[in-house]
Amino acid sequence: MYAGMTATRPAADRSAASNRRIDLRSDTVTQPTAAMREAMARAEVGDDVYGEDPSIIALEAKVAAMMGKEAALYVSSGTQSNLLGVLSHCQRGEEYLIGDVYHVYKSEALGTSVLGGVASYPLKTDATGGLDPAQVHAGVKPDDPHSPITRLLCLENTVSGRVQAPERIAALAAAAREHGLNVHLDGARLMNACVKLGKTAQELAAPFDTVSLCLSKGLGAPVGSVLSGPADVIKRARRLRKMVGGGMRQAGILAAAGLHALEHHVERLAEDHANARRLAEGLAGFERISVDLDAVETNMLFVQPHPDDFDALRAHMAARGIVLAGQKPRIRVVTHLDVTAEDVDRVLEAVADFYKGK
Amino acid sequence: MYAGMTATRPAADRSAASNRRIDLRSDTVTQPTAAMREAMARAEVGDDVYGEDPSIIALEAKVAAMMGKEAALYVSSGTQSNLLGVLSHCQRGEEYLIGDVYHVYKSEALGTSVLGGVASYPLKTDATGGLDPAQVHAGVKPDDPHSPITRLLCLENTVSGRVQAPERIAALAAAAREHGLNVHLDGARLMNACVKLGKTAQELAAPFDTVSLCLSKGLGAPVGSVLSGPADVIKRARRLRKMVGGGMRQAGILAAAGLHALEHHVERLAEDHANARRLAEGLAGFERISVDLDAVETNMLFVQPHPDDFDALRAHMAARGIVLAGQKPRIRVVTHLDVTAEDVDRVLEAVADFYKGK
Amino acid sequence: MYAGMTATRPAADRSAASNRRIDLRSDTVTQPTAAMREAMARAEVGDDVYGEDPSIIALEAKVAAMMGKEAALYVSSGTQSNLLGVLSHCQRGEEYLIGDVYHVYKSEALGTSVLGGVASYPLKTDATGGLDPAQVHAGVKPDDPHSPITRLLCLENTVSGRVQAPERIAALAAAAREHGLNVHLDGARLMNACVKLGKTAQELAAPFDTVSLCLSKGLGAPVGSVLSGPADVIKRARRLRKMVGGGMRQAGILAAAGLHALEHHVERLAEDHANARRLAEGLAGFERISVDLDAVETNMLFVQPHPDDFDALRAHMAARGIVLAGQKPRIRVVTHLDVTAEDVDRVLEAVADFYKGK
Amino acid sequence: MYAGMTATRPAADRSAASNRRIDLRSDTVTQPTAAMREAMARAEVGDDVYGEDPSIIALEAKVAAMMGKEAALYVSSGTQSNLLGVLSHCQRGEEYLIGDVYHVYKSEALGTSVLGGVASYPLKTDATGGLDPAQVHAGVKPDDPHSPITRLLCLENTVSGRVQAPERIAALAAAAREHGLNVHLDGARLMNACVKLGKTAQELAAPFDTVSLCLSKGLGAPVGSVLSGPADVIKRARRLRKMVGGGMRQAGILAAAGLHALEHHVERLAEDHANARRLAEGLAGFERISVDLDAVETNMLFVQPHPDDFDALRAHMAARGIVLAGQKPRIRVVTHLDVTAEDVDRVLEAVADFYKGK
Repeated sequence: MYAGMTATRPAADRSAASNRRIDLRSDTVTQPTAAMREAMARAEVGDDVYGEDPSIIALEAKVAAMMGKEAALYVSSGTQSNLLGVLSHCQRGEEYLIGDVYHVYKSEALGTSVLGGVASYPLKTDATGGLDPAQVHAGVKPDDPHSPITRLLCLENTVSGRVQAPERIAALAAAAREHGLNVHLDGARLMNACVKLGKTAQELAAPFDTVSLCLSKGLGAPVGSVLSGPADVIKRARRLRKMVGGGMRQAGILAAAGLHALEHHVERLAEDHANARRLAEGLAGFERISVDLDAVETNMLFVQPHPDDFDALRAHMAARGIVLAGQKPRIRVVTHLDVTAEDVDRVLEAVADFYKGK
Repeated sequence: MYAGMTATRPAADRSAASNRRIDLRSDTVTQPTAAMREAMARAEVGDDVYGEDPSIIALEAKVAAMMGKEAALYVSSGTQSNLLGVLSHCQRGEEYLIGDVYHVYKSEALGTSVLGGVASYPLKTDATGGLDPAQVHAGVKPDDPHSPITRLLCLENTVSGRVQAPERIAALAAAAREHGLNVHLDGARLMNACVKLGKTAQELAAPFDTVSLCLSKGLGAPVGSVLSGPADVIKRARRLRKMVGGGMRQAGILAAAGLHALEHHVERLAEDHANARRLAEGLAGFERISVDLDAVETNMLFVQPHPDDFDALRAHMAARGIVLAGQKPRIRVVTHLDVTAEDVDRVLEAVADFYKGK
Repeated sequence: MYAGMTATRPAADRSAASNRRIDLRSDTVTQPTAAMREAMARAEVGDDVYGEDPSIIALEAKVAAMMGKEAALYVSSGTQSNLLGVLSHCQRGEEYLIGDVYHVYKSEALGTSVLGGVASYPLKTDATGGLDPAQVHAGVKPDDPHSPITRLLCLENTVSGRVQAPERIAALAAAAREHGLNVHLDGARLMNACVKLGKTAQELAAPFDTVSLCLSKGLGAPVGSVLSGPADVIKRARRLRKMVGGGMRQAGILAAAGLHALEHHVERLAEDHANARRLAEGLAGFERISVDLDAVETNMLFVQPHPDDFDALRAHMAARGIVLAGQKPRIRVVTHLDVTAEDVDRVLEAVADFYKGK
Repeated sequence: MYAGMTATRPAADRSAASNRRIDLRSDTVTQPTAAMREAMARAEVGDDVYGEDPSIIALEAKVAAMMGKEAALYVSSGTQSNLLGVLSHCQRGEEYLIGDVYHVYKSEALGTSVLGGVASYPLKTDATGGLDPAQVHAGVKPDDPHSPITRLLCLENTVSGRVQAPERIAALAAAAREHGLNVHLDGARLMNACVKLGKTAQELAAPFDTVSLCLSKGLGAPVGSVLSGPADVIKRARRLRKMVGGGMRQAGILAAAGLHALEHHVERLAEDHANARRLAEGLAGFERISVDLDAVETNMLFVQPHPDDFDALRAHMAARGIVLAGQKPRIRVVTHLDVTAEDVDRVLEAVADFYKGK
């Protein structure tokens, strides 16, 4: 262990100074822990373009097994995982159905269409981020030159922190299969759903052909996602990964962090969920702040301060090193590895401080 | 420094056992040195998608300055660097001219066309990997709906290990500019050319709008390339990087290796060149092996054993832990950070051993 | 005039036999009139790929003038006109906003995405086919790599036969321009709107950069649409037309029909509107048929028979040579050049006949 | 027959005035004959998007039978036919091999790449426009993510007027099939090859999966090409035709011209060949003009005047109504339906007149 590294990060280290920055914008902002850094420093590596990186091989095997899929592919981001997943399922002129608030549709620059010539067809999600099988049936296009060929259903879990009910997912997948569609899951935060439901990844992944899991969100790895699925689909994805320039050389450095995360950072997601819940309840206690407590299921909450307070509150928090995301009128708050129970207290105190004079 | 790490790798460590594997397939196969691993382990990081990773920021600034360009962008591979470079210059339906043996044309799955709707037009390179300005003039298409709109010239340096003469590059760039074309350099191994010519990167990069430099070839970093160029082009490339899923989070881990490589592994490329030269001359001494010594300018050589020996020789070497690439009738040999002078001896001895009985 | 041709088609010729087929599926099914056929037979032609077809030149000039635009381009269909229009406005990775029931979004196989790498973002239309400026403001994406670059608003007029109010169109266009968007009109049936409102094409086209007008719908030409707009956009569209294989040689044969249609078939659209109105009112008189009379503004109506009657009614009509389109539960009825007032009577009689025994 | 039309165009009508324009740029410039115009004027038509145009159905059936293929598709140009053909064979990321001077590679704006994400790989043609099977073998890429997936070989016949030897075509197709490639023919001028060789279209089309035949070149129809091939490929092409906006309504007007051309204008191609030959021999007689007589096999010749004469000669001819194409130093001359034997005399006289004073 190199100087200053400690295998487990002491609470003192993590929330020492009262002015330590608390970044609640996203669970992507986590810093690798000392133990994770050491795992990276010691990683066995090889040239993954030649298929010779032992850490990458181990990570891909581990995730494939976790998900109950034949094969897996390490990629540099969730966006890349979804892009390659969709393009491996859909050819030029084909189409996927997708919830209209899902990340693949809203926040990935529609690369599937732009780069891959794949059409997307959004289905309106309900307040829980869910879809209805009837929407799938209605969304599938007839075999007619006026329409793309519908080939895939894309789901997401969790959706804005909300866990999708397994029975509902099963019904959606079944509807898709009636029409011969494949089903892809953007499971960037699937492990949050697993921890919340007390289910294994394999159980939640079962209805899907392909699953994208993100290592650099709640799991705390610095970089990377893993796409898992049938061997032939993953083979196509591997080819496409090279084309987008996602083939990396001694990527085992990163894979080591991913392996470490899967071993040490899954169960602890429960802490993030508890922190989010406590934060939500605390915030809901302020008269001029609105929080939908029912929607706080994992590590994410949406907070609506009185519009007149919005900018001032955000500035007040920022001045105290508390960074918040979201656009008026709504603030998104995400808990993660670098947010402690003490941090939650500090956030609540800062808000109380803001409202004291009002 | 963590246990077992040493700041400089002792020769003993690098060529200790006589059966240590010597991998001559490519300079991409290098293992990070202990010092590089420590730089990674200590790297300051942040979320680069938010533009907050200090190591990434430092690396991009350093490369931009080295190349004399306004801005730079860290990406996960040379393929991605070239893809984003070409797509940032060329819109749908536009075209680039390129040497027909260059990596962008031959070995990147033509992603520029497949993903970006950009046409490519190959120009026949000569034996040194070079092109002639007349080919550029002839290759530019008239403004006519029968043809794509020619927008860019793509060059490469080094090409199969051969350094492109600065005057020739200047003449090609000038020809391109007469037609209003931009000029991109695949400078994956540009530093080899710099070391060979005793020129700075800025001098060799000057004729180009954009330059792709690879950190994971001779420079020995595990992952990554840097695209540099005008601020507006790099802004477009940054947007496209997100779309292909090349936006990474705490990528500073990797950038630290790149910074270390630029500080410590540039001048030492001369060793690789010397090793390649000695290997080439040694191999040329065997009657049944042909090597074009004039073509050995940096860290790459092409060796043609007698066709009858090809398979047996390769097997003989492999049995001794010496890994060679290339397809019959030609073997490609690349020297790099993990090939020592002693390794060169061992390779020559193994070949001598092969031919002894013949 | 060739044997059997008459300059104006006598009513007798058009509805002679009581078993003459009455095709109400679409206004695309019209047969060229005798006078139109003669115009085609006499058309002066040249090679339009060389820009030498006098009839094409005349048609493009006429439509450009009609629409008050700098230039125009003859293409083989409304789909091609919209495709080239959108691709001339939007580059790879850019996006257009569009009503979610419009033809470009729903019935053109999303060629803009598939072929052109342009993203589309659907806005929910109201019952009249209209949009609200607030939807445009909300739909424009921030300048952020997570999103495509919003570049264009696509509107349609008429929408399922409904005329879009000029003030509303003006407000939508103004909203788009606030964000620097261009505005394209799918005016396949724009002349129906003109006739209905008593406005010129130029008046209704004024808010738009580009307008696609279809000659082969209500106007009765056998083939073709015309895209009009600024000279530079039309130049790009002309280049793209060649790329999709839409450059035709002696296309003046078709242009002659288009010119004839613009001279003789515009004002008569009022007859189609009257026929549609009378048909709608007649059908609304049947107890088991529902028709939204308010929605019948031009030449299109939507009819909902009692679900139990649907298949039998359609079969009953088909047996009488009356062809209907649409999918359960709704029948779409379109009047056009080949549907006479007598045909309307025949249709109503056939329906009465169907319900007589019930 | 309408006033002024005559079923066969008398020679007097075609070359009456000594200043009648003689257009030798391309066989695309032909005017429809009176008989062809009458066939169009009388054409039975329907809505081809609904598959109900009897003339289109007849034309597609006729060409499918001629070519010995299962199905055929009428499209608006040779470019569209080739585009849809290639895209029906190749998916995103796949590749076709093609002669580097062929029209699909050089003169169709590389729409296959730009619109379809299909890579192309040019093979150097010899002086006769032919390729060698060894080039096919060498051009097929290994199954490796660095390369596109090679899927198709594209040939052309005739190539710049040169007939491709059937045995050679057979050998190329056989080479392609060894690698599992399909084979497409750009047979824009296939009927010229048939007439020259005394072979049927079916014989020359046999080695190919798909064949594109152009009706608007030597065959003299105003507009259109026909793609023929296996039913499933043609079904995909039909879908793609709609997407590019090539679905036309009462296109039977054009198909009637195509049917007429196939009935009346095939055998007469021999006249064009004789005229080209006589023109070539005549021109070869001028000292300062060079013509490769061996290369004149059908209706096309390439003429090289002394460079000092080039511009003056072209101007001299233009002043006499004789239009020539091509770029210095080479003039391309194409004979066709609208070039008579008398026209050949007039051209030769005009050239003689030019050189008289010199």
